[in-house]
Amino acid sequence: MSEASEREEAVRESAESAESAAPDVAELQRRITELEDRWRRALADLDNLRKRVSRDAERVRAEERARAAAEWLPVLDNLERALEHAESDPASIVEGLRAIRDQAQDVLARLGFPRRDDAGTVFDPARHEAVATLAQEGVPDGTVLHVVRPAYGDGDRQLRPALVVVAREG
Amino acid sequence: MSEASEREEAVRESAESAESAAPDVAELQRRITELEDRWRRALADLDNLRKRVSRDAERVRAEERARAAAEWLPVLDNLERALEHAESDPASIVEGLRAIRDQAQDVLARLGFPRRDDAGTVFDPARHEAVATLAQEGVPDGTVLHVVRPAYGDGDRQLRPALVVVAREG
Repeated sequence: MSEASEREEAVRESAESAESAAPDVAELQRRITELEDRWRRALADLDNLRKRVSRDAERVRAEERARAAAEWLPVLDNLERALEHAESDPASIVEGLRAIRDQAQDVLARLGFPRRDDAGTVFDPARHEAVATLAQEGVPDGTVLHVVRPAYGDGDRQLRPALVVVAREG
Repeated sequence: MSEASEREEAVRESAESAESAAPDVAELQRRITELEDRWRRALADLDNLRKRVSRDAERVRAEERARAAAEWLPVLDNLERALEHAESDPASIVEGLRAIRDQAQDVLARLGFPRRDDAGTVFDPARHEAVATLAQEGVPDGTVLHVVRPAYGDGDRQLRPALVVVAREG
């Protein structure tokens, strides 16, 4: 029986038992046995669902981990290829390395964590970690002058804050 | 009330109602109202748990994706650093590139998908994809001679099969 129809039946049967003016004891006892059975089945369903939930969580985690890891395989393949070329011709690989860097940033963006450029924004302790301050003429106090290490993602989905150099009053 | 103590109570009360030889109608009706209430509460708990399960699955996925993505940030940082050095001194970066490759393979191993070396093993269609065959003296038919693209992970946890060159009878 579906959950919705079980609920409807619960309401209907409750109304019926209120209507019957002179119920006999056998009928009431039959009803008690039935309700006990239904209550016990609902508790058993609850128990089974709780067990399934904890099993499923681990499976969902493993699947998501595999999906995220698989996204990185082409980056790793290109790294290996760049390394093979680098050994024979180091000068040729700057372009290759740049392409791999872009590819790695694309992977993070697809996973929901795009690279963030914070240069020129106002310092925000939730998004930035100041590694140094610097007086610079014409730049307002608290402006991010330079990003030492970029942030990926934003808001609830920020993987890490950016490390920044911040402007201070001269 | 905990689920276990509810179940114990269900058993105990069921035994009690069987014992009472001459129950009165009011007592039976009180018992029916109580059981209806408990049954309905168990169904409501089941309903709430079902709703929570579907919400939680998305949250678990997002958390796992973030955890896997965060593992790659140091690799990306090193790639950016290698690129900065490469532009000024291309010859200096072969070592740096090799370190990044090793670091990326470590990340995949930590996520549960270590790089697999299949050279010299017997060809297995579940683990290998043959891109070519080659006759080579003294090597048994079906031996993996060379891995063109490595596999990561194994068994149920294989991200992809290896692309291989296989020995055939000359």
